This record gives sequence, C-alpha cells and structure tokens, in this order.
Amino acid sequence: MKGNHMIDGHFIVDATGKSYGNFFIVKDMLYDKKSDYQQITVFDTEEVGRILMLDYAFNVSTLMEAFYHEPMAHVPLAMCDGNIKVCIIGGGDFGVAMHVLKHGTVSECLMCELDPAVIEVSRTYFSQWSACEKDSRFSLFIDDGSQFIETVDNLDVIIIDSTDPSIHAKELISESFYKKCYRALKKDGVVMQIIADTIFYKDVWAGVIPTVSSLFPSWAPVLVPVPFYVTGCWGLLFLSKSHNKPDLSKIDSAYLSRIPGLKTMTPDIVRGWFSLPPYMNDYVEMLT
Amino acid sequence: MKGNHMIDGHFIVDATGKSYGNFFIVKDMLYDKKSDYQQITVFDTEEVGRILMLDYAFNVSTLMEAFYHEPMAHVPLAMCDGNIKVCIIGGGDFGVAMHVLKHGTVSECLMCELDPAVIEVSRTYFSQWSACEKDSRFSLFIDDGSQFIETVDNLDVIIIDSTDPSIHAKELISESFYKKCYRALKKDGVVMQIIADTIFYKDVWAGVIPTVSSLFPSWAPVLVPVPFYVTGCWGLLFLSKSHNKPDLSKIDSAYLSRIPGLKTMTPDIVRGWFSLPPYMNDYVEMLT
Repeated sequence: MKGNHMIDGHFIVDATGKSYGNFFIVKDMLYDKKSDYQQITVFDTEEVGRILMLDYAFNVSTLMEAFYHEPMAHVPLAMCDGNIKVCIIGGGDFGVAMHVLKHGTVSECLMCELDPAVIEVSRTYFSQWSACEKDSRFSLFIDDGSQFIETVDNLDVIIIDSTDPSIHAKELISESFYKKCYRALKKDGVVMQIIADTIFYKDVWAGVIPTVSSLFPSWAPVLVPVPFYVTGCWGLLFLSKSHNKPDLSKIDSAYLSRIPGLKTMTPDIVRGWFSLPPYMNDYVEMLT
Repeated sequence: MKGNHMIDGHFIVDATGKSYGNFFIVKDMLYDKKSDYQQITVFDTEEVGRILMLDYAFNVSTLMEAFYHEPMAHVPLAMCDGNIKVCIIGGGDFGVAMHVLKHGTVSECLMCELDPAVIEVSRTYFSQWSACEKDSRFSLFIDDGSQFIETVDNLDVIIIDSTDPSIHAKELISESFYKKCYRALKKDGVVMQIIADTIFYKDVWAGVIPTVSSLFPSWAPVLVPVPFYVTGCWGLLFLSKSHNKPDLSKIDSAYLSRIPGLKTMTPDIVRGWFSLPPYMNDYVEMLT
C-alpha cells in the first residue's frame, strides 16, 4: 500500500507515505484522466459524497467541504472591512471562491488555477460550486500562482488553496513567494494558506514558520479538524501585514449569522482553532 | 475491504463499515490472539507508535493517546473539588487511569474492565500506562461494567471508556445503564463517556441524546479531534447531576498547568470542544 493508487477501479488508497493511510470505496467512477499536470479523478461514494482526487490523493468531498473551505474563506474575510479585494491561488474546485462570494463585503475575487483540466472537471462534476463563476465580481486566470501574484496588487486577502505544498507545490511555501504575497497586499492585508497536518508533517511547519515570522509582523497556525485529511488534525496558516490581526473579536455571532448555510464555525470554535495545544505550541516556540 | 481484517500480517484494515476507512502498516507484530471476548492485537509501526486493536478496530496508539485520554480524564476532574472518587468503566489499557491519577485531588480510582486478557496485554506492552496500578488509590475489578456500577456509590466521576458503544457495548448507551450511573453518583457528580464520530454515526447520537436529556439536568456533547479515529471528529458526552456543570471557567491555565506533560488542552481549546458547530447543533436541537 505504498504510494497512492487505485485497485481494480474499486478502491483508492491514499497512502500518505507513513505507516497509516486512508482508503475510499468507489461507487461510480466519473472521471479518471491525466492532465498536463496530474491525474484527476472524480467518483461518487455510498457515504462520503462525491470526491475529487489529484494524483489519487484526497482533495475534497461534497460531504466535508465546509470543514476546510469555511475556515479558509470566512476567517480572513472577517479581518477586513468592506470593498474587499481577494485573490485565490489554486482553488480550482471553486469551493473557496463560492464561500468568498457569499460575502457582500467582497468587491472583487480573482482566482488563479494552474491546471485548466481541474477547472473543466469542476464545471462538470461540482457545478454547485463552479456556479459562482457567473458572479460579476469573479475573474478566473489560468496561470502559475507564483507568477500571477507578481501581476496584482492592492489585495486585502490572499487565500492559497493548493495541493500539498510540501510535495506538489513547494514554491508556495518558499521565501520568494511569501515576499511576493507581502508586496501584493495592502498595508493591512492578510493571507490564509493550507500548510500541513500537524501530527505527521511537523517538518513542513519547521520550514515555514521561520520564513513567515521573519517577513510578516503577525502570523499564526490555525488548527482545524478536517475529516479524511490524513489524521484530521489539519493546519492552516494565517499571516498579516498588521500587528493588530488576527482580531478574533470580529468573528462574533453577528458576523457568522450573516453567512448562509454555515456548518462548522462558532466564535468559541474559532478561538480554539487559534489556540495552539501544548504539543504544537512547544514546537512553534522552539522554531522562533 | 469490507470488515476489519489483517492482510498477510502486514496491513490491518479498519473498515468502519462506510465507504471510507483507515489502514495501518505493521512493523513488528507483538500479540494477536483471541480472548473470551475479542481478538486482541498489538503491533509496532514505523511512524504511529505502538497500537492496540480490538477485533482489528483501532483503539489507541502511543502516538495519539493524549488526544483521547486527556479530555476523558481532565475535563470531568476539573468539575470536582478535592477527595474525588472516580470509577472508570472499561479503560483496560490503563491510559485514562494514568491521567486520572496525575491529580492529587483524586482520593480513589476504581477501574472495572470486562476482559482480563486486555489487562494482561496492557501490563506487557503498555507498561508505561499500566504502571499506575501500583498507586495505592487505584483498584482493579474484572467484571461487566453495567453490573459493577450497581455495587458502588457516592462517586464524583464516572468515566466510560469502552469499545464502540454502538457496536460492541450497546448496554453502555441504554437507559437502564444511565439510570444506574445516576444512582451511583453523588448529588453533583459527573459522567464522561465516549460515544461516536459525529460525521458517520449521528444515528448513535440520535439514540443517546433523548435518553440522557430526560435523566440528567445537564448534558453536552464534547467534540474533540482524535487522529486515527475514523474521521477524526470524535464525540464524547458530558453529563452532570447538577445544573451548574460544566463550569468551563474551572478549566483555566492554573488548573491545566498542574497537569504534568499535558499535550492537547488550553482553556480556549476546551471551550471550542463544548461549542457545537452548526452542523451538529442543528441536529441536537432537532432531537431535544
């Protein structure tokens, strides 16, 4: 079971490279082709919804998308006032964009996805998410995110929704990329990024934390539970050009009540996400 | 991959009965025998520690034990003053007992495990946990927990650390068992119990919540992230004979700082565990 792979079209093994992994039982295989960048696979399951995999690694399912997309979108947007300009790097399944565009305070949402085949597949198989591209505030770009970010500026929020940055998207956790993000942001702009599981992949955090803490005045790991992502103890990263953020008092009941269909967040839950447990806090302190 | 099983002594598949499951890669198989009650398996892995499985379902590993045992022990104990009398139902790996006995406020800790073979295996392979049985406050009983609880009284805390109560230990989520717990507790006593994953097993909660809410003045699901437990979104249940509990202000930094080697808890994290996300809160409200 080493390496992600499919068995006879019936099981997909997400092997994680550790002595532990997940598997999914396919009910109906809908799409399974190699693009210029990766194997793209979409299938329906009996109990865990419709699933998108990239290189047979679990990316998202309709059952659990809120656990990942809600913190990625609603946490950084709470930190900004109206007329918010957002840039999503990656995010080709349209899930983050759909949540971003729920906010009337957003005036512009750019999304830059590397692989056009992911866009086409999402339009076909996740149309409830891709429908948000009809919103007049939304613009799609097919490009390398690290190059694209050089062409934009005056951003309030950058959301980096890539494949695993320690394996497939190393550039997106490099010092040069973070410098580009810093430049593209307004003076009090913020970043939200997927980094890694905090149980198995502390080495990824060990590379990221010294880099971001030397560039950004304020930063914090945000630990959220995400079903089907390896151990479920998933780690996002929040960055800010202002010392005054994150201001968690902005994620209050009034803010959350304005988000239609919210599934995973309460003010106390978000405070918990930003509070590092001792096992992680001791580690972060060691690095800084 | 339906049903939990071992493949050629190298992989153990924890199938969950859903279209999703976990697997573990065995490095050294240490024990694999059937007791009067269940298949007991202990093995070492490369990256996820030493693992105890019962009927090839994941129970605990040395890597993640704190994620489960800390909330089970330290949350209910915070709600009681000194001279605390604790009864653990199940818990044969000694993990919960070890954490309970870290508290100088505990005067007595009874543990009632059904399967004597689990005790023997734990003494051999998890001696860092079973060492706590030498503590003079500790007493072990081999018995059916539901019968044993009828023989004790004046308890401050009951901790129910069983195998999956929806599959193997149905009696422990029955009305008659909860009535026995209610009787065995002091007037302001509390219960902490493992129930089920909140993503796949809402039907288990649908059985438990109406029962406990009719018996106990105060009750709350406690949602903790536990690596390797199905989706990782794990659900415990807190019950109290007093309206005034849980009083989360008692789980403050001073309380937590007195617990040696604490790994997973901060005051804000615990508040997050007790705050039901909308997807679960809407469901609980529907049941009550």
